[in-house]
Amino acid sequence: MEALIHSNERLDDLCRKGYRLIQDPKLFCFGIDAVLLSDYAKVKRGEKAVDLCTGNGVIPILLEAKNNGEHYSGLELQPQCADLARRSVKYNHLEDKVTIEEGDVCKASEIFGRESVEVVTVNPPYMIGQHGIKNADDAMTIARHEVRCTLDDIVRESAKMLKFNGRFYMVHRPFRLAEIFSTMMKYHIEPKRMRLVHPYADREPNMVLIEGLKGGKSRITIEKPLVVYKEPNVYTDEIYEIYGDKPRNNGK
Amino acid sequence: MEALIHSNERLDDLCRKGYRLIQDPKLFCFGIDAVLLSDYAKVKRGEKAVDLCTGNGVIPILLEAKNNGEHYSGLELQPQCADLARRSVKYNHLEDKVTIEEGDVCKASEIFGRESVEVVTVNPPYMIGQHGIKNADDAMTIARHEVRCTLDDIVRESAKMLKFNGRFYMVHRPFRLAEIFSTMMKYHIEPKRMRLVHPYADREPNMVLIEGLKGGKSRITIEKPLVVYKEPNVYTDEIYEIYGDKPRNNGK
Repeated sequence: MEALIHSNERLDDLCRKGYRLIQDPKLFCFGIDAVLLSDYAKVKRGEKAVDLCTGNGVIPILLEAKNNGEHYSGLELQPQCADLARRSVKYNHLEDKVTIEEGDVCKASEIFGRESVEVVTVNPPYMIGQHGIKNADDAMTIARHEVRCTLDDIVRESAKMLKFNGRFYMVHRPFRLAEIFSTMMKYHIEPKRMRLVHPYADREPNMVLIEGLKGGKSRITIEKPLVVYKEPNVYTDEIYEIYGDKPRNNGK
Repeated sequence: MEALIHSNERLDDLCRKGYRLIQDPKLFCFGIDAVLLSDYAKVKRGEKAVDLCTGNGVIPILLEAKNNGEHYSGLELQPQCADLARRSVKYNHLEDKVTIEEGDVCKASEIFGRESVEVVTVNPPYMIGQHGIKNADDAMTIARHEVRCTLDDIVRESAKMLKFNGRFYMVHRPFRLAEIFSTMMKYHIEPKRMRLVHPYADREPNMVLIEGLKGGKSRITIEKPLVVYKEPNVYTDEIYEIYGDKPRNNGK
């Protein structure tokens, strides 16, 4: 097994079914966003799921751990991230359930096929515009900024890949909420459920979890707030439960 | 003064500048929604505001109490409500600052003129469809259901009436949030600020306060939750502050 992990990498405990994830601190390491999205998304028995912008593959691996779906795919643009994800799949002996594809999210529906899956998940780059970008080819920049794909690309391709009544799950930043809703509705993915994530109960939210339904009718449930910290450095019970254990060193 | 109030009516304390409001229990009496919207909306010195679906006029009267705007108008379709509102204006000696117009919200921009105001407020009918409606001409039904105007009518007319960079404030139900955002964006009123109102801190929100900016850029601030009750029958400090006093008998 040793060869699966390179010397610059670390092995993080996912606190689910003994799974571990290979991460390279120089690339994008997963944060609480990915953990929350993996918990918010549900994949039912017999369903297939695709995770876009999968990075090191944390979401399909966590989805496999928590659901009874038939298959989980991850799509990743950056070769070094896709390689990392594939090695994590292998390390956890998930080759039959989880597949990592290297490719462009803008062509996701060509890669996976139209109306081919019941679930799409995505933890996309949050930032728009070129503000603060030093190198648009940098792995971190590609993970964080919309330099290689936009929200519109992601939602458009998701809508094409989803079967009718298929579900779209996304974590994003609240400041883009209006744009997110209008883009989803443009591609006939109706926002059906939303949960705001607040660092503390009395603070503005800094994340939003959204579920959309392809071809759904207009009516959204706004759920109760998800609060991350009870006090500084102490997660709320709900967050501990989502992590499956007291997290060690792999929260942002 | 006695003739201003009819025998079937009551006089409620607005807890601001000694203002009182004439209400008819058989018509729609204002609830916490109107109080919260009046607090959420800001009218600056020299600005003119129009309140659509004004009912008994509680919003323009509360806005006048809390702001330094130049003028406040209320538009009401139902003659008996408009009459009630006018008598409350008179009772509080606000004839120079507050005007009540009787008319159809679908023609609001003809009544008030295009690009004529800096602020529009609205506490519209929340319910869509005909479900549970016994009599579509009933005053309560008109106040609660979209039988005489739709969200689209309201936002379209607001967009016409607002000057460039004018502000649109609305209180509504969270289940319509996606539709609200997309309708606002359709008419180029960009959602810029939103606050969800939760009955208790750990419950789903049952109201949403929204501020839109005509011609604004895409970026919304989701504010911290507004929690109504600390415990059963006890408002939170923030709600007491918004009411301006311990409310007596005029919260929903």
